[in-house]
Amino acid sequence: MPRTHQPTPPPSRTAVGIIGGGPAGLLLARLLHRAGIGCVVLESRDRGYVEARQRAGILEQGTVDVLRACGAGERLDREGMVHDGIELRYDRRAHRLDFPALTGGRRVTVYAQTEIVKDLIELQLAGGAPLLFGARALAVTGADTARPAIRYRHDGREHTLGCDYVVGCDGFHGVAREAIPDAARRTYERGYPYSWLGVLADAPPSSDELIYAHSDRGFALFSMRTPTVSRLYLQVPNGTDPAHWPDDRIWNELEARAAVDDTSWKPARGPLTAKAVLPMRSSVTEPMRWGRVLLAGDAAHIVPPTGAKGLNLAVADVTVLARALTQVYGTGATDLLDAYSDTCLRRVWRAEHFSYFMTTTLHTPPDQSPFDTRLQLSQLDRIAGSRHAAAELAENYTGLPLP
Amino acid sequence: MPRTHQPTPPPSRTAVGIIGGGPAGLLLARLLHRAGIGCVVLESRDRGYVEARQRAGILEQGTVDVLRACGAGERLDREGMVHDGIELRYDRRAHRLDFPALTGGRRVTVYAQTEIVKDLIELQLAGGAPLLFGARALAVTGADTARPAIRYRHDGREHTLGCDYVVGCDGFHGVAREAIPDAARRTYERGYPYSWLGVLADAPPSSDELIYAHSDRGFALFSMRTPTVSRLYLQVPNGTDPAHWPDDRIWNELEARAAVDDTSWKPARGPLTAKAVLPMRSSVTEPMRWGRVLLAGDAAHIVPPTGAKGLNLAVADVTVLARALTQVYGTGATDLLDAYSDTCLRRVWRAEHFSYFMTTTLHTPPDQSPFDTRLQLSQLDRIAGSRHAAAELAENYTGLPLP
Repeated sequence: MPRTHQPTPPPSRTAVGIIGGGPAGLLLARLLHRAGIGCVVLESRDRGYVEARQRAGILEQGTVDVLRACGAGERLDREGMVHDGIELRYDRRAHRLDFPALTGGRRVTVYAQTEIVKDLIELQLAGGAPLLFGARALAVTGADTARPAIRYRHDGREHTLGCDYVVGCDGFHGVAREAIPDAARRTYERGYPYSWLGVLADAPPSSDELIYAHSDRGFALFSMRTPTVSRLYLQVPNGTDPAHWPDDRIWNELEARAAVDDTSWKPARGPLTAKAVLPMRSSVTEPMRWGRVLLAGDAAHIVPPTGAKGLNLAVADVTVLARALTQVYGTGATDLLDAYSDTCLRRVWRAEHFSYFMTTTLHTPPDQSPFDTRLQLSQLDRIAGSRHAAAELAENYTGLPLP
Repeated sequence: MPRTHQPTPPPSRTAVGIIGGGPAGLLLARLLHRAGIGCVVLESRDRGYVEARQRAGILEQGTVDVLRACGAGERLDREGMVHDGIELRYDRRAHRLDFPALTGGRRVTVYAQTEIVKDLIELQLAGGAPLLFGARALAVTGADTARPAIRYRHDGREHTLGCDYVVGCDGFHGVAREAIPDAARRTYERGYPYSWLGVLADAPPSSDELIYAHSDRGFALFSMRTPTVSRLYLQVPNGTDPAHWPDDRIWNELEARAAVDDTSWKPARGPLTAKAVLPMRSSVTEPMRWGRVLLAGDAAHIVPPTGAKGLNLAVADVTVLARALTQVYGTGATDLLDAYSDTCLRRVWRAEHFSYFMTTTLHTPPDQSPFDTRLQLSQLDRIAGSRHAAAELAENYTGLPLP
């Protein structure tokens, strides 16, 4: 199979033009293609880059269901690791949250976003809608007309893709959002006074389930990609240079932050194969629709990664959107499309709040007062001791039902 | 009956010396007296002042139970108003929380702290332990010896009350806390960038239950003292002068902050009989015991009033303490007394967190970002829409069981 699949010449007209070949754009293309709706995906990077981009890896039950239903569940079902809970560590103690018991049977699945992207690209290239790599969107025009278009650069030349609808799945720095006039667009934002140092390690997971650790030294998260690859995170100050974190320092710090009094638990160490500092940010752009331009995923909203909500929100957006566009092309009715922004934003703000809650409950800001540290510990104790507080976390973590 | 009851000469020796004749000190004296343990209460103010001091008015079920069990429940049962819920207002909508349905039958009772104090003083003067008004504690000595004492000033002269144990129920500015050496004492604190303007009105309650209102204009709370007296609060900037708030402005602001779209609800107006600005503070002093000195209520911890926890925490403290001292004087065992600080502090920190949660969810700080306002609204929506989130609030509000 060729490394990329480039239609020649580039298409100049489609029903739905999708900017961005990440999981949101690819999944939307898959859902529309199966509904018989024409679409084209424009991705600025090459296939290798897109398939290697390290991102999330915790899938809500609803996300797994959508991927399965569109035929992208085969390898996910084979290789994905179903998790029935997470462990919280704080005050040198450990407490497990049992998700199915707390939520009436809901679970999460560990399967890296990179693998979802690979699966969706393979499906797309094997007979889906056109997918252009190296096609950089420059602008969206005619958003509030019946003939919006995407201007893009590909193979050194500028092209225009005329569309019925344009969907921006082009992330936080994408151009689609710019199609909404400044006066009509509002962005809500929040920064955090810490970042994550994220590493990949050739080491088996240190625990069967994820460990979220609160400590005076800062937050640590023990996650995994596969049974032999660990994904690990440390809270670090903003502006941290990963070069100041040699491997030993990282392992020692991970171990110290997650230490508990009554076990001799230690993380399994192994060579680190990737090391990067990830900023934390919350952001929501409203509305998510302007005329015939629709935003989905990171193009409309960013969450800090602590709640594992970013990918799942993107999947929810495009699932709602595919349903709406299927209605438009099937019956001409636009009520689902008209409701798209409001429908998604309710779920988005819930996830924003949950992500904020997880982030601020587990991280210790550099200037945190001892009083606020005690509040965090009291909150964590409450989650460990109260069914309602635990269930509230578990319901949000495993994901609310799609609207 | 004389207005005050002053033993002559002032006692110089007792088993338990109690500093402070607020609800904590008076209730402790009542509980100890019924257990046959000698005690003396020293109160710096006069009876009229103490009985008029406006404070809390929402009693947890456990608080009502303790007052009843010690014989102070007669008027409370007759005049107290049992409430089965509260109303949240936000985003021009109203949502009621049904406490019994959410908590398996728990309720709160509206009965002003001033009335509890009157009831307890009457019981005390009618045959309880000695209660000295105008007796200002100056210092506690010998905290870590077997013979602690309270130096106090009364009728222009200094006296010493020798005790087995000294209990500081003398509030945030009391002297008992100073008996714990600086090196052994830690105070955790948090301020808030707003205060409450609290008023009493000769007006029937505007609603059968309390209304907690979040709005862009700031928080408002509609509470009550009796069927003909309303207790009302407005969030105002720190340092507000009540003189800048004429009655009409207060009523207009109360009405605007609690307005909802689908009713023509308006608060019943009436003459305002008291007007004061109350600062908001969180504070916890640890430990709550040092040698033979024990702290209870506001002497050990302050909560912002939004969660209605201050009085209830004080009642819980002295209930735990009375049980511990009854064990000491009954069997000589000190395990309950040794556990007093830890037992209380677990409950204290839970209440501190809940009070912080209620305060920061419902108030809008002057510099609040639009993002954070949306988080508040998402949290309130979740409470309105999720059984677990609602039950978590209801359980904390109606009060956790005594340890």
